Amino acid sequence: MGFEVYDDETLEDLQLNNLWLIQKKDSFRFGMDAVLLADFAKAGPGDSVVDLGTGSGIVAILMSARTQAEKIIGLEIQPEIADMARRSVEGNGLSHRISIQQMDIREAASRLPVGKYDVVVTNPPYTRCGGGLINPNESRAIARHEILCTLEDVVKAAAHLLRVRGEFYMVHRPDRLCDIMVEMRKNQLEPKVLRMVCPRPGDPPSLLLVMGIRNGNPGMKLLAPLYIYDTDGNYTGELRSIYGLLMR
Amino acid sequence: MGFEVYDDETLEDLQLNNLWLIQKKDSFRFGMDAVLLADFAKAGPGDSVVDLGTGSGIVAILMSARTQAEKIIGLEIQPEIADMARRSVEGNGLSHRISIQQMDIREAASRLPVGKYDVVVTNPPYTRCGGGLINPNESRAIARHEILCTLEDVVKAAAHLLRVRGEFYMVHRPDRLCDIMVEMRKNQLEPKVLRMVCPRPGDPPSLLLVMGIRNGNPGMKLLAPLYIYDTDGNYTGELRSIYGLLMR
Repeated sequence: MGFEVYDDETLEDLQLNNLWLIQKKDSFRFGMDAVLLADFAKAGPGDSVVDLGTGSGIVAILMSARTQAEKIIGLEIQPEIADMARRSVEGNGLSHRISIQQMDIREAASRLPVGKYDVVVTNPPYTRCGGGLINPNESRAIARHEILCTLEDVVKAAAHLLRVRGEFYMVHRPDRLCDIMVEMRKNQLEPKVLRMVCPRPGDPPSLLLVMGIRNGNPGMKLLAPLYIYDTDGNYTGELRSIYGLLMR
Repeated sequence: MGFEVYDDETLEDLQLNNLWLIQKKDSFRFGMDAVLLADFAKAGPGDSVVDLGTGSGIVAILMSARTQAEKIIGLEIQPEIADMARRSVEGNGLSHRISIQQMDIREAASRLPVGKYDVVVTNPPYTRCGGGLINPNESRAIARHEILCTLEDVVKAAAHLLRVRGEFYMVHRPDRLCDIMVEMRKNQLEPKVLRMVCPRPGDPPSLLLVMGIRNGNPGMKLLAPLYIYDTDGNYTGELRSIYGLLMR
């Protein structure tokens, strides 16, 4: 077993179960949002999980270590990035649990079975695509802006894939909260749990973690806000515990 | 000027601008949610404001002291409670600015002009009406449960009353967050600002403060959570400042 790493890539030690991750030097470096999502998302023994827009595969790989999910499918539209994620999966010896499929998530409804998956996770592009200032050919722009998939596309794909009572986990930006609630309910992915992530005490939230249940009943649980830093500028105990061995 | 106070009522010193409030001894005692709403809601000089479900009139009376709103109309369905609020308004010499009208908010659309008000505030019943355990004749039950008006009724009435770009301010419970977002957008009252109120650090939110703009554009701003108590169990500086002279 080994990692095939190209010139424009680096190999990062995840410091968890001896896992490594291939990343592009200039983009697709995983952020705290991916780590928080992989911690927030739950999957039980035998569960099948789909990661919509898997990118480097970070969420799929972390969830393989942190849950007993039987099968995790990572969908990634960009062939070069899907190939990179696949090399990380193979290099870590995880091909029996993680499968990376190069696919537009808007095609998931026609290419993957309906209502068969237990869990869907996603760290989608955050920014509404409005102006013309974005280069649509750049990998990083595709990951960050709604060029190739909108929030609506993501929620529709998740609703299509999940079984009744299946769980949807997403990390997103606070400014999209209303869009998220409206799209989820419209697609029968009822929002059940919301957690805000704030940089430090006194700061507004910078991220949202949301969980929804396919065909769930209305009624939400809001969790205590998660703080990244304490008032002294040190990582909080909870953040350290989420990062675990990933923390340098 | 004087307050006519009945046997089942008490007169409470609001310790703000020499204002007093009549309350029922056994119900309709104002809570922190009313004070937080009156602080969160903004109104400019000359603005006309409607308070949907004014109860004792606490929010209308506090806003008369804290804003330069020209006219505040408090709608209250229960005749006895509307009468009590009216006596508070008269006793405080505020009849020139505050008018209490006994009205079902579901009738507001036919009894009040469309799109004429600058601001709508509301501290509505929080609890979905499901079972049969509530006595629908009890004043307190009407104020707390959606017996005589639902969230949908409140949002519809606000959307009817507000001018384009008029502002809607509501305090509600976190478990209704998705319902609130969905109803507001459905009625072109776009959610713009959300603040969570948490009892103390580490606690989940117990209240939500939400602001929406009539015909506003999508895009929300989430504020830093407001904490009631600090880790030592004392009121936080921000809460003290909101309560101001109301704090004993």
